[in-house]
Amino acid sequence: MLDQMKQTGRWDSLKLQWKSGDPNPPHRFWDSDIAKWLEAACYILTLQPDPSLAAQVDEAVDNIRNAQHEDGYINTYYTVVEPGKRWTNLSWSHELYDAGHLFEAALAHNLYCQSRRLLDPLLKYIRYIDSVFGLREGHKAGYPGHQELELALLKGYEQIGDKSLLVLANYFLEERGQPRPQGHYFDVEAEARGEAPNPGPSPKGAPKYSYHQADRRVRDMESIEGHSVRAMYWLTAVSNLARVTKDESLLEAAERLWDSTTKRKMYVTGGLGGMSEWEGFGPDYVLPNETGYLETCAAIGLVFFAYQMLLIDPRRTEYADILERTLYNAVLVGVSLDGKRFFYENPLATVGKLYERSAWFDCSCCPPNVARLIATLGKYVFTVGADDTIYVHLYISCTAELTISGGKRITIVQQCNEPWNGGAKISINGPDAHRMKFSLRKPLGAEDFKVYSEGINISSLELNGRVETYMTGGILTVDFAYSARAISPHPLVLDNRGCIAFMRGPFVYCAETIDNPQIKDLRAIRIIPGRTPREFVEKREFSEWGLDPIVLKVDAIILEDGVRKEDEVTLIPVCLWANRARSDLRVWLPSLLPDEGLA
Amino acid sequence: MLDQMKQTGRWDSLKLQWKSGDPNPPHRFWDSDIAKWLEAACYILTLQPDPSLAAQVDEAVDNIRNAQHEDGYINTYYTVVEPGKRWTNLSWSHELYDAGHLFEAALAHNLYCQSRRLLDPLLKYIRYIDSVFGLREGHKAGYPGHQELELALLKGYEQIGDKSLLVLANYFLEERGQPRPQGHYFDVEAEARGEAPNPGPSPKGAPKYSYHQADRRVRDMESIEGHSVRAMYWLTAVSNLARVTKDESLLEAAERLWDSTTKRKMYVTGGLGGMSEWEGFGPDYVLPNETGYLETCAAIGLVFFAYQMLLIDPRRTEYADILERTLYNAVLVGVSLDGKRFFYENPLATVGKLYERSAWFDCSCCPPNVARLIATLGKYVFTVGADDTIYVHLYISCTAELTISGGKRITIVQQCNEPWNGGAKISINGPDAHRMKFSLRKPLGAEDFKVYSEGINISSLELNGRVETYMTGGILTVDFAYSARAISPHPLVLDNRGCIAFMRGPFVYCAETIDNPQIKDLRAIRIIPGRTPREFVEKREFSEWGLDPIVLKVDAIILEDGVRKEDEVTLIPVCLWANRARSDLRVWLPSLLPDEGLA
Repeated sequence: MLDQMKQTGRWDSLKLQWKSGDPNPPHRFWDSDIAKWLEAACYILTLQPDPSLAAQVDEAVDNIRNAQHEDGYINTYYTVVEPGKRWTNLSWSHELYDAGHLFEAALAHNLYCQSRRLLDPLLKYIRYIDSVFGLREGHKAGYPGHQELELALLKGYEQIGDKSLLVLANYFLEERGQPRPQGHYFDVEAEARGEAPNPGPSPKGAPKYSYHQADRRVRDMESIEGHSVRAMYWLTAVSNLARVTKDESLLEAAERLWDSTTKRKMYVTGGLGGMSEWEGFGPDYVLPNETGYLETCAAIGLVFFAYQMLLIDPRRTEYADILERTLYNAVLVGVSLDGKRFFYENPLATVGKLYERSAWFDCSCCPPNVARLIATLGKYVFTVGADDTIYVHLYISCTAELTISGGKRITIVQQCNEPWNGGAKISINGPDAHRMKFSLRKPLGAEDFKVYSEGINISSLELNGRVETYMTGGILTVDFAYSARAISPHPLVLDNRGCIAFMRGPFVYCAETIDNPQIKDLRAIRIIPGRTPREFVEKREFSEWGLDPIVLKVDAIILEDGVRKEDEVTLIPVCLWANRARSDLRVWLPSLLPDEGLA
Repeated sequence: MLDQMKQTGRWDSLKLQWKSGDPNPPHRFWDSDIAKWLEAACYILTLQPDPSLAAQVDEAVDNIRNAQHEDGYINTYYTVVEPGKRWTNLSWSHELYDAGHLFEAALAHNLYCQSRRLLDPLLKYIRYIDSVFGLREGHKAGYPGHQELELALLKGYEQIGDKSLLVLANYFLEERGQPRPQGHYFDVEAEARGEAPNPGPSPKGAPKYSYHQADRRVRDMESIEGHSVRAMYWLTAVSNLARVTKDESLLEAAERLWDSTTKRKMYVTGGLGGMSEWEGFGPDYVLPNETGYLETCAAIGLVFFAYQMLLIDPRRTEYADILERTLYNAVLVGVSLDGKRFFYENPLATVGKLYERSAWFDCSCCPPNVARLIATLGKYVFTVGADDTIYVHLYISCTAELTISGGKRITIVQQCNEPWNGGAKISINGPDAHRMKFSLRKPLGAEDFKVYSEGINISSLELNGRVETYMTGGILTVDFAYSARAISPHPLVLDNRGCIAFMRGPFVYCAETIDNPQIKDLRAIRIIPGRTPREFVEKREFSEWGLDPIVLKVDAIILEDGVRKEDEVTLIPVCLWANRARSDLRVWLPSLLPDEGLA
């Protein structure tokens, strides 16, 4: 990834040597690419030392420090490409978005090495931003065109306790979509640039301003609309603010938009964005398979949002359920098994073997975003509640150090059979270990969920998908099994009419051409209703990457070239597709209808 | 339409008074908007005099004449906005496309008033274009980025007999997609502009060059790809050239791409373009309902293409069948009943009542295109074969003057009950009337198709959907009936899985919200299989426009808010939707599946 960053000119762009007329001008969003790489690198260094990576981090930090103006401003594009145009185009320029990612990188750098070499310059930049924006006389009443700074400010507030960060985040979140007598801020600034106001409604329903989630105040919003990545970053900040301020109406808005997102606009994989025309949400239940967008970054944003909701109410299992579903499907499918190639879009069906992952993109938000998510995966496994309850959300093998009341540190070791088979053993060390309360989540698709404490089955304590118990013997054993299950589509999702999908545990499965060479077009598959899928551990070509995934075989009629034949269709987890060859995938498979006859 | 043309600055742009720095610069395609309006106006004037319209035509002709350069060149954009940049960006500039539309306008103007006031300047422009392009040393080996000039040149060749027009059209059509050692022309010119080559493959399958149908030679093309309007204009020219030159392999290519278009990539309405991302074709059988593009101009292009194919083989009824289907559905839906508002995109299902027709568009190709099609509708009713057979394709009431061998003129009067009820009476006048051979097409969805000559039923002469007979008594009577029929989707079109559509005669029907107020969301409809639709003549609100359409009522289960109830769903022809209120439509309706239970 660093290679691509260097080859494309991103890495050196912060040295501010580009001159008007030179080829390859820095883009508006390049700072964010470097920042996300830097953030990921710092989190990786927190987990394990790597002197060569650390040297690259130092260089990036130096470049950012040297790019800072006297007044605190940092932005490559507006320094070398359009100097003098600062803050003239919030709606489309990504200027505050870049600032947000730089601040997130500074927070990660501070965590990794306790140094303030990057944090202090970024806090200076934030103070400068605070001096520019707001409702006071002489300030710009604007807010980010691509949300991101908001969540970074709140993360900063929670990490370093600086209340001015909370105040600025609150301003951006409260002002967004506020009706103002002088007109919508995005029109006011467009007029100041001598341009026409923001374009009007698209005929297909991305109404004015709602592409940016800026058509009304969040408290007045009933449905999530517009660009999916913007929406998810924003709702992450909204729910974070609601938790921090305990504002009831903001919390209600967050819950309402959570429901809108996950109950009416989400694909079975956790993917978001049915409308490729604006990389975002369509009307409720419009989830086309071949033409959907399902941007990898939108799925990452949904993980962030789910995490904030889970911190608000860790007992409500739907938050961790969606987080787990999205992580194992919509996020993981975005990266190849060798970690080097990426999907930007992730439709649930393809035709013509046209898709393959790329090492890089012109607009390359997804690769470093995947990197920083994977590098911080640990935080989604356990969370600590206000009463020091340890919430176990994901069964991923790890050793975790958690901080509880009074700054005490405890160590938890979790050993799991995941992801192909259920079960985990959780042990805890520390002086207060025996007094800790655990809340153990029944994972997605788990069967026979049992929890044993000192050998005693305490599963009868299960309430709403969680078992809560005190740790008495230092070890808790969790047992559960997975088996393949068939999923029916929501009746209003006509894109999946008469179709069926398969899951096993958290994984959504798909047919991939390479595993079904006898079928020319995957659309010819008709699953025979009522037959049980068979499970096999198949090494196939996946053993190259150390994987022995469980593969499903289902009975189907193949209707091809006017011939009907019964055959077995092989299914693999969606996240594994497109690793072995150019191929097609299909998640929702037609089931045999009565007028097609039974086998 | 003229009002919008004037308000937006288009009309006066040809006066070339725009100066750098002025607001509202002329767009690259404005010349074509004026030209299409002018072409439509001339055809309308051919049918009926209108002094006020004629004066506007004169003004437009003067403006075009005055805009012409010494060397013959005419293009507003490259005269005032980017002078000196002529012919530097064929792939994206619409420069030759504008030229084609100007030439088509000149041909219409010449037909209307026999004057050469516009034709001569345009022929001078074409000669100048001929001096610029070609394979000779010092010429540019380019071709249009948006096809249109090709079909205009061939139309000109057939109208005025100037063979140089045929030669130039032949060059553009043969050179397109030819592999050349110096590289693809669109890359060569991009490099000359100092830009990167044409962008590479889209991840969703609009591969390099095929957006422009320029990835290979037409003779090597198996499947139609890319932008639908470009594709249809181009295939119109390809099939026209094949007919004129009688080139067998070109004819085969035209037939192959006709099959690709109409058998694997066309919606039930005749609409084209499943992929809104590039306003064009997706893979075979990928025809999403809500997110499809179905541009009005693409449907108009399909009418042009079908007409050329029909001229090649007037006995093959599929050409007129597709022409009729497209005209009555995909074209007519593009214009409101008052003729003043237009749809650019025509998806077959909408959600959220977001669609309404607009009086104009920034890129306003569709409104004047509809106008010129309607103004020339007459030519699709009858065609004259090489042996003077009169082919009757459409049963639309009209009086037609046709030219047969030896320049003789005959007059045909056709009186029809169309479009709601079948049947027609065709009479003929002229000295040779009794010797004329007629070939009468059985229209789409016609039942009990009977032809009577001198009172005698000669329907047993029907062969492949046509009855051929000599006109002996001066009058032929055609009788047929329509009734509603249910259409099943192609098994590979999974977008319509488990759904059904209804047609009656040439009309495709849809449910519109306004006629079904008891159903909150049209997706809740489940048609009960096997029940016969009932037909009603309903005035409803359509009588305002002098229409008494036949409306269908079908039995369905409505699954809404967890309640199942049997109800009657009202269907209207698709072309009538969105005239009475903001509403939703749905063409493909789910039929009740066994697991949803029967009524």
